[in-house]
Amino acid sequence: MIPFAAPVRDFRFVLEELLEHGSLALPGFEEASPDLVEAVLEEAARLANEVWAPLNASGDRQGCRRRDGGGVTLPDGFIEAYRAYAEGGWNGIGVSEALGGQGLPEVVASAVQEMLHGANMALGLCPMLTAGAIEALAHHGSDALKETYLPRLIEGSWTGTMNLTEPQAGSDLSRVRTRAVPCPDEEGDHYRLFGQKIFITWGEHDAAENILHLVLARTPDAPEGNRGISLFLVPKYLEPGSPVGADGSLGERNDVVCASIEHKLGIHGSPTCTLSFGEHDGAIGYLVGEEGRGLNHMFTMMNEARHKVGVQGIGVAERACQHAFAYALDRVQGKARGSEATISEHLDVRRMLLSMRARTDALRALALYCAAQLDVARHAADDAERAAAQARVEVLIPVVKAFSTDQAVEIASLGVQVHGGMGYIEETGAAQLLRDARIAPIYEGTNGIQALDLAGRKLQRDGGAALTSLIDDVEATTQALAANPALAGLARCLAAGVADLRAALVLVLEQGTDPESGPDAVQAYATPFLALVGHVLCAWQMGRAALVASAAVEAGSDDPFYAAKLQSADFAIRQWLPVGRAQRAVIEAGMESLAAFDAAAR
Amino acid sequence: MIPFAAPVRDFRFVLEELLEHGSLALPGFEEASPDLVEAVLEEAARLANEVWAPLNASGDRQGCRRRDGGGVTLPDGFIEAYRAYAEGGWNGIGVSEALGGQGLPEVVASAVQEMLHGANMALGLCPMLTAGAIEALAHHGSDALKETYLPRLIEGSWTGTMNLTEPQAGSDLSRVRTRAVPCPDEEGDHYRLFGQKIFITWGEHDAAENILHLVLARTPDAPEGNRGISLFLVPKYLEPGSPVGADGSLGERNDVVCASIEHKLGIHGSPTCTLSFGEHDGAIGYLVGEEGRGLNHMFTMMNEARHKVGVQGIGVAERACQHAFAYALDRVQGKARGSEATISEHLDVRRMLLSMRARTDALRALALYCAAQLDVARHAADDAERAAAQARVEVLIPVVKAFSTDQAVEIASLGVQVHGGMGYIEETGAAQLLRDARIAPIYEGTNGIQALDLAGRKLQRDGGAALTSLIDDVEATTQALAANPALAGLARCLAAGVADLRAALVLVLEQGTDPESGPDAVQAYATPFLALVGHVLCAWQMGRAALVASAAVEAGSDDPFYAAKLQSADFAIRQWLPVGRAQRAVIEAGMESLAAFDAAAR
Repeated sequence: MIPFAAPVRDFRFVLEELLEHGSLALPGFEEASPDLVEAVLEEAARLANEVWAPLNASGDRQGCRRRDGGGVTLPDGFIEAYRAYAEGGWNGIGVSEALGGQGLPEVVASAVQEMLHGANMALGLCPMLTAGAIEALAHHGSDALKETYLPRLIEGSWTGTMNLTEPQAGSDLSRVRTRAVPCPDEEGDHYRLFGQKIFITWGEHDAAENILHLVLARTPDAPEGNRGISLFLVPKYLEPGSPVGADGSLGERNDVVCASIEHKLGIHGSPTCTLSFGEHDGAIGYLVGEEGRGLNHMFTMMNEARHKVGVQGIGVAERACQHAFAYALDRVQGKARGSEATISEHLDVRRMLLSMRARTDALRALALYCAAQLDVARHAADDAERAAAQARVEVLIPVVKAFSTDQAVEIASLGVQVHGGMGYIEETGAAQLLRDARIAPIYEGTNGIQALDLAGRKLQRDGGAALTSLIDDVEATTQALAANPALAGLARCLAAGVADLRAALVLVLEQGTDPESGPDAVQAYATPFLALVGHVLCAWQMGRAALVASAAVEAGSDDPFYAAKLQSADFAIRQWLPVGRAQRAVIEAGMESLAAFDAAAR
Repeated sequence: MIPFAAPVRDFRFVLEELLEHGSLALPGFEEASPDLVEAVLEEAARLANEVWAPLNASGDRQGCRRRDGGGVTLPDGFIEAYRAYAEGGWNGIGVSEALGGQGLPEVVASAVQEMLHGANMALGLCPMLTAGAIEALAHHGSDALKETYLPRLIEGSWTGTMNLTEPQAGSDLSRVRTRAVPCPDEEGDHYRLFGQKIFITWGEHDAAENILHLVLARTPDAPEGNRGISLFLVPKYLEPGSPVGADGSLGERNDVVCASIEHKLGIHGSPTCTLSFGEHDGAIGYLVGEEGRGLNHMFTMMNEARHKVGVQGIGVAERACQHAFAYALDRVQGKARGSEATISEHLDVRRMLLSMRARTDALRALALYCAAQLDVARHAADDAERAAAQARVEVLIPVVKAFSTDQAVEIASLGVQVHGGMGYIEETGAAQLLRDARIAPIYEGTNGIQALDLAGRKLQRDGGAALTSLIDDVEATTQALAANPALAGLARCLAAGVADLRAALVLVLEQGTDPESGPDAVQAYATPFLALVGHVLCAWQMGRAALVASAAVEAGSDDPFYAAKLQSADFAIRQWLPVGRAQRAVIEAGMESLAAFDAAAR
């Protein structure tokens, strides 16, 4: 088995040298020092490498089993590994101190998340979902709900889930049918829920004492569509003293049960449940936030969840890199320059390896840049600074989610290819990474939905202002690169990408405001546009990395890390960016064939 | 379950309208009429749709099991489905009448292969390997071997395997260590083989009475490297009257046994075996062709096997299209133009559907064009015509193999994406297609090996002449398109692709002959170059399709097939080709970062 080594060196490079620890200078992070961050990264790496990573393959092989009665048995070791995480206090590292967390910057929390997902994505989903529940409750829950439930979620002794999807309601949540009936004749301020939710990640398990389900449901007489949907908290076990059931007994076990678990392509260690609410008297639930605003409340939280899914993709991509490099450095086939060689010596294999490495580096840098902007948006003293960062975050998040996960699938697939025939054998481990990665472009809003969010919503509402401001920063980087003769080639390539992106932006904005074609038309351009943005922003980050690495080399550093980073940057900008730039031509080609296309015609 | 419907209409379009049944006009195909071809396609579709396709999902779920003693149990129904194929005479359709086959053109045989692989790729591998054994024996076997073994292979009552790979010898077959010892002191002209072969497709099963293993092995005192390797035929069961074993008994069961089968990402219905030769007295084998020329003999046959793997990828891509279209036309989510809509109405989903369809159409047209050139290369009366076609085939085959299979993985992955969350659930069937497709870029020479074969070998040895002649034909198509005002936009896009390809070809040829960088340097350019060639040739075929479809529409046809084909062509040329064209920029960027890259550095 290939051991996992969380890429602490690269995290430190991005946090310290690319982002210059900007988050630590913000109000609220006075306690966090570079030394503390370094210690946190080292400690998280230990948990990831030594506790979580060794269970990744066995968890995939064993998978989860539903027991009679509705319980779910996790793969061996998962309960202990989750508890090691919770007892280490990791669940609260990004949660504010006011709520009982450790209040570390989002950049640091994101780095830790990536390590854990790289070590064991299926297990990493459990705290990822809990983080969503914490967000939802912290932002929208009543004081009573927060007091009762938040501390246990933050310490990780209880976990959370998100219950959105129903068989007829996936990307279109306006179709949710689960009912929530208020119970004025019963003691307490609660509802009873009836309905079925599908695809509930970590919906049932024994790793925590209790599970808190956040559930979208419809109140009686609520209007059709989005505005009739509210958000409810439905605990698996009710608190002592909670409302009693119709039969008079204390309702300790709530009326929610795992009806089945899915047999999936990957993430076998993560139980994906169908939850049945209200097979008897109704599952007791508490309203979170305002009635009728459930979707809004859910979306507050989803923005961050989407960032986390992007980070998850990067974690898996990192592990795919490590597998592929280890194999290529060990496997002897053919000759290079006349003598026996490992396949890492063959230029065509090097292309695959460097492509994997350069892309993973670039995606990581962009995701952490976005996390740093999240820190600014929340913590900067200046209102305008916060607003500007928030505007960037809004544009960046769909890109981080969709682009990172699409690329992660490609990187994991390349990882399989590097292994040749061994890559297709499950025991090797490369195939699992491809299977696991393949969910990330789908859940938490498909990548198509992300593209529509970017091109149809985020760009149109500010006329592209936030993206244009980002592009201006990319252009500044091209100028800095151009000032260094050794990097002038990169400057030219990146500048060409900037020009393409500006031209494409004009077209996409025109589409969105064209009264003839209507607002739907922009949908046709959304996916190629997001891909172009992703390529240019990743190339930008690698351009910045090249500046830093080049300066280090010029200053006399002989750390091979910098030489490798320069190669990554060169590849990302010269050989990867051109593929993204092609999306301008795709956008300019017009979309007549899509508009005319009748899928039923043939 | 989504039923499979072999795309007979599109095969007829390509064979009749794009290729104008050119193969039927060749000497040797006098018996084959368009009516006969049509009947063959319809009958093959029935076998594919009704017998093979229904076993695809169950075969994946059940997989193969190795029994104690070395036997392998296939999934339920596979034996019967294979026998229906063999008894229908399908195994011999592409084999010459002189050898007992039906002597139909390769274009027709390829169409039938695609249908069967689309229906059930795991099962399709069995006859695919047998076809390789037939080729090897027909070209290189002695008359005695041919007489004894060919008829049973052609009728399909016996099957064949290819035994190349050993743990230390994959892409680099010079490392083969299996030994073949001549036995002059025993009766008959045979060898005894000792060694282990891995990744042997359909290496053991009960669907046929006997299995003929074609095995690469080294004779005693043979030189190191490629020239020491010979090819042997090792039957699972010896013929009555064959040499007796050392213990004096009749060696009816040969000394070759299935030691294990692999647990793979996909094609679970295809047993991938480790075969152990000579655990006792040695497996009796017969030399095929000349001693020391085993690799050459194997490669004769491999060219065709590579074409078949490309076709296999297209079959799986076709099935992925059918799954995705069926789901998208059924699944209601969101609104389009103000009212409830199936997701096929959303432009972003249409992009995925049309991208899948356009690419599959294009790949099919190119693969069948290549098959038609194979027919010309073998059957044309004129020597020069045969030689020119053979030269094209040599260039086209690595493209058909690598480009079709890389694209098939992407198409199958898009198919998963169209299904949203359901795509990740194994029962849906979309994920299986991705898992199955993923082997095709690996086996029968990895796609990296194909790219090296094209850029490093095929192009360099004729200075790009055969490819240039193909590009000239593409250019002729751009002129035909330009003559039709409705298609002039396609003409411009295709012409731009031609210009890129010509420029890239110059660069790649320079690399191959540059004494400074040495012959290895071209490896760095091989994969992007193959991708560029694939995109341009596929766009070419769709340009030709657009000409035909446009003429049909102008002539008053209201067959929706032609309108759909025009949309496919428009998408392929305007929206898919630009992504391929980007490879010119990749190639022009130079490969310094690859040359400098040290995979061990970080």
